[in-house]
Amino acid sequence: MISKTPKPPYYSVIFTSIRTAGDNGYSEMATKMIELVSKHDGFLGFESAREDLGITISYWKDLKSIKKWKENEEHLVAQNKGRKEWYKSFKTRIAKVERDYEFKS
Amino acid sequence: MISKTPKPPYYSVIFTSIRTAGDNGYSEMATKMIELVSKHDGFLGFESAREDLGITISYWKDLKSIKKWKENEEHLVAQNKGRKEWYKSFKTRIAKVERDYEFKS
Repeated sequence: MISKTPKPPYYSVIFTSIRTAGDNGYSEMATKMIELVSKHDGFLGFESAREDLGITISYWKDLKSIKKWKENEEHLVAQNKGRKEWYKSFKTRIAKVERDYEFKS
Repeated sequence: MISKTPKPPYYSVIFTSIRTAGDNGYSEMATKMIELVSKHDGFLGFESAREDLGITISYWKDLKSIKKWKENEEHLVAQNKGRKEWYKSFKTRIAKVERDYEFKS
């Protein structure tokens, strides 16, 4: 689903990653994190797709909300497991959405 | 591949889309556009993945380069075909990357 985000400005966290082989508990944690983040203050939505490369973009009201989510205890557990088990490599980019436009046929 | 982008700030164009059924010349055009954009002034790299939702993020030196690419004649032809044939819906977000960090195992 394309996220229904508000009028800019708002923030995006672009997370691109290469996974290790096997699930190793990843799917369960991903479901849990989606549930958790959906209730988080300042969270606006997310978009995700994976082929060899995985891209997950979450949208946020402001930098403060992003910081709080990064420091969430359960999320810290997931982040730690991510580095140890699930990801060969990843890159996170924090970007301020200045403009957007859309098309619907 | 995770893009090797320079130290922030730089710009990103987040393009999320839902495709129509069938290829309809899409793949050929996509290959052509990747070749073309790779030589474009200010282009820094791109990342792409598709499941039901497709996400393509291109990275750019500045807003001027993004504007020039948007107005590129061959790209305009592709954009027009995109609205007519390839996409049910899409959303484009222009976002300034303020911070990034990465992990390699």
